[in-house]
Amino acid sequence: MANRTPGGENAALFLDDLHVGQRFTSGAHAMDEEQLRAFAREFDPQPFHLDAEAAKGTLFQGLVASGWHTAAVTMRLLVEGGLPIAGGVIGAGAEITWPRPTRPGDTLHVESEVLELRPSRSNPGHGVVTVRSETRNHLGELVQVLVAKLVVPRRT
Amino acid sequence: MANRTPGGENAALFLDDLHVGQRFTSGAHAMDEEQLRAFAREFDPQPFHLDAEAAKGTLFQGLVASGWHTAAVTMRLLVEGGLPIAGGVIGAGAEITWPRPTRPGDTLHVESEVLELRPSRSNPGHGVVTVRSETRNHLGELVQVLVAKLVVPRRT
Repeated sequence: MANRTPGGENAALFLDDLHVGQRFTSGAHAMDEEQLRAFAREFDPQPFHLDAEAAKGTLFQGLVASGWHTAAVTMRLLVEGGLPIAGGVIGAGAEITWPRPTRPGDTLHVESEVLELRPSRSNPGHGVVTVRSETRNHLGELVQVLVAKLVVPRRT
Repeated sequence: MANRTPGGENAALFLDDLHVGQRFTSGAHAMDEEQLRAFAREFDPQPFHLDAEAAKGTLFQGLVASGWHTAAVTMRLLVEGGLPIAGGVIGAGAEITWPRPTRPGDTLHVESEVLELRPSRSNPGHGVVTVRSETRNHLGELVQVLVAKLVVPRRT
C-alpha cells in the first residue's frame, strides 16, 4: 500500500503533521473460518460465530465474525501502518457500527480519514484527533465504520 | 451473581420481557499479564500493551490492556449471562469510551441497564434495544462504558 510505514519512526506523524481530510490506507488481512472460531471461543461464544451448521438457522444465515473480531483486526491494520501516528494509536473512545458482518474468506482493509483536530484540554503536549476508519472486504463492501477520538502528541 | 442464567433458554429474555431501567450484572473475569500480551500480540502490538518495561516510558506509565481487549472480555461476560437475551447478544453498533485502562491483576465485571426499546423498522419480528454496559474493575473503577444497540426478537 502506498502509505505503509515499514520504517516506523521516520514516517510517524505528530499532531502538527496532520490535517483535516488527510487519508490513509492500510494493508490487508484475510479472515478464515479458524480465526473466526478461535476469537469466538475466547470472547464471543455464540452459535453464529462458532458453528457453520447452527449459524444457518440464525439471523445471519451462516457463520460470521464477532463484530469485536472485526474491530480487533481493524486495530491491527491501523497499528501496522494504516494510521502511522507518533507514539502509537491510542483511542479515548469511539463510535462503531457494523453495516454487514465479516464472513470466512473475506479479506479486509481499512481506509481512514482525519475529520477533526483539536488541542487536548487536559494535556497541552497532546491533541485529540477524530478519525473515521472504514473497514471493507475484498468486494469493497463496508463491514465496519469506526469514528475514533485519538490522543496524538505534538512535535516537541 | 443474582441473574446469571446457567439454565440458558429458560431464562432468555425476549423484547416483550424487557423494560427501560431493567438492570443486569455479569459474572467476573480476572485479567493477567499473559492474557493482555497474548491479545496485543495478535491484534494491538504496541509497546504499552506488550512490554512492562517499555510501557513505563509511555502515556500509560505501565502495561495496560488494549481497549479492544477490554471490549472483547466485556462481550464474553455479557454472552455468559450478563445480558440473557433470546437469540444471543447481537449488536448493530455502539458508542464506547475507556475512562481508564484495564491493568494486569484487574478483575472485571459488567453492569448493564436498558435505556431504550423500539420496534425495528426493517424487521417486524425484532426490536432495537439500547443498553448501557459499564465495565468496572475490582476497585469499582470504571474502565469502559459501552452504549450498544442490540437486535432482540419478539416472543412469537
